Amino acid sequence: MHRNLRSFAPLRMTVIAIGFIAFPAQSQTADDIIKREVGTTRAYDTLEYLTDNIGPRLSGSPNAAAAVRWATETFQKWGIAVTNENVIVPHWVRGAEEAKLVSHHNQKIVLTTLGGSVATPPKGITADLVEVHSFDELKTSNVKGKIVFYDNPMDMEMVRGNRSFEAYSKAVVFRGEGASRAAQYGAVAALIRSVGSTSLRTPHTGAMRYDPNFPKIPAAAMTAEDAMLVDRLLKKGDGVRMHLLLMPRTLPDVASANVVAEIRGSEKPEEVVLIGGHLDSWDLGTGAIDDGSGVAMVMETMRLLKEMGAQPKRTIRAVLFMNEENGLNGGRAYFASHKNEKHSAAIETDAGAAAPTGFRTTLKGEALANLEKLAQPLAAVGAAHFETTPETGADTSFLTEAGVPGFSLVPEPLHYFDYHHSPADTLDKIDPKELAQDTAAVAALAWILANQ
Amino acid sequence: MHRNLRSFAPLRMTVIAIGFIAFPAQSQTADDIIKREVGTTRAYDTLEYLTDNIGPRLSGSPNAAAAVRWATETFQKWGIAVTNENVIVPHWVRGAEEAKLVSHHNQKIVLTTLGGSVATPPKGITADLVEVHSFDELKTSNVKGKIVFYDNPMDMEMVRGNRSFEAYSKAVVFRGEGASRAAQYGAVAALIRSVGSTSLRTPHTGAMRYDPNFPKIPAAAMTAEDAMLVDRLLKKGDGVRMHLLLMPRTLPDVASANVVAEIRGSEKPEEVVLIGGHLDSWDLGTGAIDDGSGVAMVMETMRLLKEMGAQPKRTIRAVLFMNEENGLNGGRAYFASHKNEKHSAAIETDAGAAAPTGFRTTLKGEALANLEKLAQPLAAVGAAHFETTPETGADTSFLTEAGVPGFSLVPEPLHYFDYHHSPADTLDKIDPKELAQDTAAVAALAWILANQ
Repeated sequence: MHRNLRSFAPLRMTVIAIGFIAFPAQSQTADDIIKREVGTTRAYDTLEYLTDNIGPRLSGSPNAAAAVRWATETFQKWGIAVTNENVIVPHWVRGAEEAKLVSHHNQKIVLTTLGGSVATPPKGITADLVEVHSFDELKTSNVKGKIVFYDNPMDMEMVRGNRSFEAYSKAVVFRGEGASRAAQYGAVAALIRSVGSTSLRTPHTGAMRYDPNFPKIPAAAMTAEDAMLVDRLLKKGDGVRMHLLLMPRTLPDVASANVVAEIRGSEKPEEVVLIGGHLDSWDLGTGAIDDGSGVAMVMETMRLLKEMGAQPKRTIRAVLFMNEENGLNGGRAYFASHKNEKHSAAIETDAGAAAPTGFRTTLKGEALANLEKLAQPLAAVGAAHFETTPETGADTSFLTEAGVPGFSLVPEPLHYFDYHHSPADTLDKIDPKELAQDTAAVAALAWILANQ
Repeated sequence: MHRNLRSFAPLRMTVIAIGFIAFPAQSQTADDIIKREVGTTRAYDTLEYLTDNIGPRLSGSPNAAAAVRWATETFQKWGIAVTNENVIVPHWVRGAEEAKLVSHHNQKIVLTTLGGSVATPPKGITADLVEVHSFDELKTSNVKGKIVFYDNPMDMEMVRGNRSFEAYSKAVVFRGEGASRAAQYGAVAALIRSVGSTSLRTPHTGAMRYDPNFPKIPAAAMTAEDAMLVDRLLKKGDGVRMHLLLMPRTLPDVASANVVAEIRGSEKPEEVVLIGGHLDSWDLGTGAIDDGSGVAMVMETMRLLKEMGAQPKRTIRAVLFMNEENGLNGGRAYFASHKNEKHSAAIETDAGAAAPTGFRTTLKGEALANLEKLAQPLAAVGAAHFETTPETGADTSFLTEAGVPGFSLVPEPLHYFDYHHSPADTLDKIDPKELAQDTAAVAALAWILANQ
């Protein structure tokens, strides 16, 4: 059902005149957007196809290419203008990953290779483990020829206090830099404790980076259970010796794409409100929370606006970024191509699909106060709360660093890191009702910003 | 600290004279046993060594042999008479296990081979999936040349209603018989949904059996997430085609052992109260709940009684059975050797180590009523409740079928099948306080039965 919302503008202006005089139809239309989306399974159905039929979609993989084709064709099917914009991406492929404690009856250790890691020699590495809890400890521990084990669990008090992302940031530094920091002191491999907030022997992967000044050593994440086991054994003074085999491969870079769709603005088409999520995922799960649900919110926002015949004043542009997980090449490529355009705002959604609680934003002061007034319709889905932060998203960080106002959806964070980057990031973790509420929040905010 | 409890008997008789005249020291000593054990980490420390230092111990494996040596030496160290009794066990070894949906972008399916399964051809099997929910459906589904998928989740209402074991029994029939039942109609492989009560893409293994009348086809358990995925795709009418590779091997049988330790009775040494758990475990986890904790309770009961200098009237015999998981050969061998002895009771503990709630027993009527009076001290750890059931344990089933009164400890069952037979069955799932309470309950009941 299509209808021209503009024809109702005079009536609406009467109803919502107080405080919204400058933007007559906007708040009313935001209400309408929310009402139309909430309770539907439209975003969920889109997510279901992406995760169930295509599945994991790590950059460079055939499944990532399939996701680009599917998203493009889906926008086309919906009658929405869409293009693919080239992104060159790394092509890292997981291989065999095995570990056992040769010092303790060869018992198996469950771990997963960190994204970007080099391989061990084909016969593996056998070495003693040294446990540290900080980079400083590397200096005083004798790690030469050994496997460094960073035993840094997420701070669960923080997680329970709704500060999961802060707890993640604290713990994840060892995933990113741990290998090179350990290699600096002569270590032969680096292990972390999986960065996750619960575990059933669940490994969590994620990107690591090499410092070109030090040798590249292989890196993996043990499950929480295995990390606790090794910690207990080391505390007994036993000495722990591990055989570690990791056989990932880094293949030549691959030409991939961001999928970019837009509904052109009626009054200021050259001004762009960007809404984005990332189409790539890690390879262990099917990327339902990270970030299939963000992709579904963004795609469904476009379908809904198109179907409503909504004509925003500014252009609303959907960007499904490629390679957020292990390179950010999609975000970088987008910025390189579009930095000279005027971006009024960039909304990123990449934090799962639990019930919405509001948005983080780089806006503050009067600008934020003005928006908060306009954004009151979002209270219908619990998303009218805005919190000022310096960073609002990875793919859009290039834009926000250049001064574009940034926004990121904040779903309830409590369980996000139970699944994040693990094999358990699958569709069944998503509640269709909550995903619809998130979608409504993103669509309504995009609408408000495009008409502000 | 050792002391002779019998010297206190007259005093105790005064205090607890009503209703317990025939057994003066028994109830008081049961109190003492409970008080001494509760709050200690003694059972936990034993369990920690078994699970952390030896780890998984599937029958026939080097780790199972190490567990036999360790348990034997530990009893010896504690000054308790111990022997090994021969048990011939199967030696099944897990190999590669991989599956992908060739009909859906080759996405990976997480599964684990069922214990005892034959292998696929080395290149695997590629076939369509047919979903059924009962053996009856096999008759009307066209399963010839296909992979049968039994989609039978545990009844979660039952689980939440403290009937986990009943829910397990209902679901597990497809694990045991599913392959042969499907082979009867020409299927080329059988898959089940993992029998578990939660999942983070967690596979649960377990034993399956072949009916010699039908071809042996390979069998595996998908995780709950993968089962739900396949179910969704099939419901869409898509057709689902899988490539399945399972490379387990069945090696020649191995000579292993039950570990049998005892404290001889002072008045009726020829009458035996057996307490048992099983030393073997599945290979995916370290067998902390199944049944390392049972082993720890049994071993600690013996250490405690020995340390207290307690002299039971009847012999208390600890049996750490081998091969409960995939053959019951330990239980069978024990019965073959000892069936002519008089067993007064057989207590089995093989249901985890959550807080005790009581015991199941084959006793009923007056015999049970008499015991319930004697067992009142167990109320101190919440374990004075007895429920009559026809079966009380697998290893001791040969004894109870021959008329020996059977008992099995009943810890809170809610989370048992979250971990059971999965990689997540590890030490961290055990609460030392609850394990001590369980141990106290087993030790006190053994004491009461040995003096009744």
